[in-house]
Amino acid sequence: MMSDNSDIDKYYDVVVVGAGPAGIGVGILLQKLGINHIILEKTSIGESFRKWPIETRFISPSFTGNFFKMPDLNAITPDTSPAFTLLTEHPTGEDYVEYLENLAKYYDLPIKTEVCVDTVQKKADSFVLTTNKGEYKSTYVIWAAGEYQYPKTNAFEGTHLCTHYSEVDSFSDLEGDEHIVIGAYESGFDAMVSLIRARKVVTLLDDGDYLNLVKSDSSYSLAPFTRDRIEYVADLFDYYTETKVTSVEFVNDTYLVKTANGQTFTSPQKPINCTGFASSLTLVKESFEFKNDYPLLNDFDESTKTSNLFLVGPQVKHKNALFCFIYKYRQRFAIVAEKIAKRMKVPSQAIEKAIQGYKDNNFYLTDLSCCDDECTC
Amino acid sequence: MMSDNSDIDKYYDVVVVGAGPAGIGVGILLQKLGINHIILEKTSIGESFRKWPIETRFISPSFTGNFFKMPDLNAITPDTSPAFTLLTEHPTGEDYVEYLENLAKYYDLPIKTEVCVDTVQKKADSFVLTTNKGEYKSTYVIWAAGEYQYPKTNAFEGTHLCTHYSEVDSFSDLEGDEHIVIGAYESGFDAMVSLIRARKVVTLLDDGDYLNLVKSDSSYSLAPFTRDRIEYVADLFDYYTETKVTSVEFVNDTYLVKTANGQTFTSPQKPINCTGFASSLTLVKESFEFKNDYPLLNDFDESTKTSNLFLVGPQVKHKNALFCFIYKYRQRFAIVAEKIAKRMKVPSQAIEKAIQGYKDNNFYLTDLSCCDDECTC
Repeated sequence: MMSDNSDIDKYYDVVVVGAGPAGIGVGILLQKLGINHIILEKTSIGESFRKWPIETRFISPSFTGNFFKMPDLNAITPDTSPAFTLLTEHPTGEDYVEYLENLAKYYDLPIKTEVCVDTVQKKADSFVLTTNKGEYKSTYVIWAAGEYQYPKTNAFEGTHLCTHYSEVDSFSDLEGDEHIVIGAYESGFDAMVSLIRARKVVTLLDDGDYLNLVKSDSSYSLAPFTRDRIEYVADLFDYYTETKVTSVEFVNDTYLVKTANGQTFTSPQKPINCTGFASSLTLVKESFEFKNDYPLLNDFDESTKTSNLFLVGPQVKHKNALFCFIYKYRQRFAIVAEKIAKRMKVPSQAIEKAIQGYKDNNFYLTDLSCCDDECTC
Repeated sequence: MMSDNSDIDKYYDVVVVGAGPAGIGVGILLQKLGINHIILEKTSIGESFRKWPIETRFISPSFTGNFFKMPDLNAITPDTSPAFTLLTEHPTGEDYVEYLENLAKYYDLPIKTEVCVDTVQKKADSFVLTTNKGEYKSTYVIWAAGEYQYPKTNAFEGTHLCTHYSEVDSFSDLEGDEHIVIGAYESGFDAMVSLIRARKVVTLLDDGDYLNLVKSDSSYSLAPFTRDRIEYVADLFDYYTETKVTSVEFVNDTYLVKTANGQTFTSPQKPINCTGFASSLTLVKESFEFKNDYPLLNDFDESTKTSNLFLVGPQVKHKNALFCFIYKYRQRFAIVAEKIAKRMKVPSQAIEKAIQGYKDNNFYLTDLSCCDDECTC
């Protein structure tokens, strides 16, 4: 890693923004391709994962199926495996940072930490990124800044009165014995399970009936790991379905949680907002076109509005296919890296050599039509 | 399913022996290819899984990554998922039988239960299988009888005095409060964990140091699920490494377990033998050549000694690549089915149509050289 300022005012072929799994994953390919690049990270490697509540674990299981063509679901290269490094099936956030740091070191990635990107502007054929450490210039930008650090704050009135899921360090350390959890997706159920295990009383408010929604795609349905955890505490929490929260108020030292169907729930503790995350793309929103909150991308995950600006990570969406799991969005790293390499006229033999292992191990998804099917059994 | 005797004395293109995941998995392909076949099952569908101890669960995690090219590790077709059907990450044996039964029904497989194959003989170009229900004749035989039902009984002297892992219905129902577990592979650690959870005292005898052996290949190293479970009970069991059992004796109402390094462990309860399973191939051993206990197979998993006799399931081995997980041996179903279809001159277009989904989703492993690598991180 780099710590001096020799990198500023240099010109890069590629600037990658973010040193989480997306930025490191695509950075490894740039390194293999010999492309001159730098990875700018606002805080430190895998910062989002460091901020996970200590009780939180990966919902997608790690298992070293690599070398039989079934790479670990949480791996970001075809030949590595968090299960192999960490010896656990469901890593914590801290665990996963260890895996990412190992990779950054193994591949000697040019990561520059504590560089906060403020603006990204395209001038003629170059990008100029202004940061707290000065300006960076490049021909290509890969936006890999993730989404976990940006809480969604518009799901109902009074979100500022709540604790957002991402702000919790430890559920067992939260003050009080009774908690209202708003939102019943993965994070809502995770909060509930961790609170119950800490012997707290939990009311979970679900605007639909997410527990009973079963879909083949894990982006639209609870993970089996989550269902197993819920099963274990099934009778220990109050669960309200079809109960959409419209506002939270704070009156006489009490939080009032009001719902669309006319109910009011009260708690002495701040409700926990688990309605999701906003996209880090707000920082570069002028550089993308949007449809239903998702950025429009061409077949190479490049902005339809700004050429040479690519997106990798959980915000990628093509039609109904959400790429919000590592095992999904990692399948686009090689697509992006290959496209940039071709434009830079890297010899095709060198490109093939760098991405062959990706093609051979389901790290190279080109057919986006597959992703809509449902299992027959 | 078939229950009358109209199938006997008919001639089949293919007889499949065994209606577990291997037999059903390859049977689905034969069905798709329109090949005239029958699946003979000694007892009932997935019988080995029914016999698992009730506490035992799959060590490979189920997760519906299907449609993003990462099919459920425990699925036997590319478009189905035990996690989707069963809503759990680690199915029990009974759970998995439900999945297998769903598939058998969905594909209307010609499974004949309670047919016990006694001998398989090749006469001229045909196989004759003698069974408790009469003779079956065919051009091809696919042996898919698995291994779980056949305990290994030669690891030390006195195995007949022990309870074999596969004979346990429930660890919590075992008589007594103190148990000696012999063998520390997956089944030994599984027995230990289940006994500890049932609040019993456990001594685990490991002939090596399996807990500290970390390999990329799950056939040679403990699954992360197992490591997580061990971690949870880490200080609650007595673990002896490099302690190879040489004999078990029963003297004065006490079991004496003697080891190569001169120790003797005693228990009022039968020791639990977790040294592994013997192969069902003993029934057809004359039809295979063997090397180090594994049958020799050509590139299509056909016996090198008997043409048109194929093997599918956990006993398949090529060089150092053991196929003893579902996610491994399922990758050979289409290889076998394709080979038989070609010999039967099924039109190549029909073959391609049947196996395309297998090729597209890592259910079609041809390159066996991959399987020896180690993860870098």
